[in-house]
Amino acid sequence: MSEVPAPLRRFVSTLETEAQHLEKQVNQWYFKDGLGDSESLVFVRAKFTAGGSHPFHTHPEMDEIIYLLSGEMEQWVEREKRTLKPGDTAYIPRGVVHGCYNDSGADCEFLAILTPAKIAGPFSVDHAHEEPWRSLR
Amino acid sequence: MSEVPAPLRRFVSTLETEAQHLEKQVNQWYFKDGLGDSESLVFVRAKFTAGGSHPFHTHPEMDEIIYLLSGEMEQWVEREKRTLKPGDTAYIPRGVVHGCYNDSGADCEFLAILTPAKIAGPFSVDHAHEEPWRSLR
Repeated sequence: MSEVPAPLRRFVSTLETEAQHLEKQVNQWYFKDGLGDSESLVFVRAKFTAGGSHPFHTHPEMDEIIYLLSGEMEQWVEREKRTLKPGDTAYIPRGVVHGCYNDSGADCEFLAILTPAKIAGPFSVDHAHEEPWRSLR
Repeated sequence: MSEVPAPLRRFVSTLETEAQHLEKQVNQWYFKDGLGDSESLVFVRAKFTAGGSHPFHTHPEMDEIIYLLSGEMEQWVEREKRTLKPGDTAYIPRGVVHGCYNDSGADCEFLAILTPAKIAGPFSVDHAHEEPWRSLR
């Protein structure tokens, strides 16, 4: 039962990312559990086309920072809302309900960084269909 | 001995960052120990003018990801070197010697995200004047 260790992966270029295509959203994963050798950090660049969103949800075991790269995005952290512009950030402690909505009519791009990378339960839990979140916007 | 708790600081815009001016370098701090309410993540945007650098050093207690926003930067992780372009990343485990050098002749900008935010010892330790790092480039 010998296993060849994965090579160290200390540089990830934009061309080496793992792409994930969702509705009105493309994620480019740089580092996550099983991708790259970081046990502490998840790093993903996301693009929402017009109307794209990640509705109210939590990351039960991970703290998160969002950094807007381009465009505009409506960001909620619990009941607080801001329109993020390039260079703006939001910090979301683990277990706190938050949501991202692109109603700008144009693309937006952002980075999401989460810690830790290795967790026991699910990456995210949906709360969009529960009150008070369902009626909030 | 009552103490007023600091307000939650879940949004930090680019205008709300704390600026740090160094030689050929400006850091804009979004989140760090004592700034914002993240205990797990440090988040800073840095600009190097031509010739700016953060020579070989370690973060003894923190893992780090670097993300290049603009320009070009020579990034070392131990003895491995890459020229980062916009969208490229480097991952540096805690205690691993690394260095950033802007020899491009123009400005470059990057994000650095470190975890955890609360540590016992120094943020970084200089190794630029020790072998093999002193002779490496």
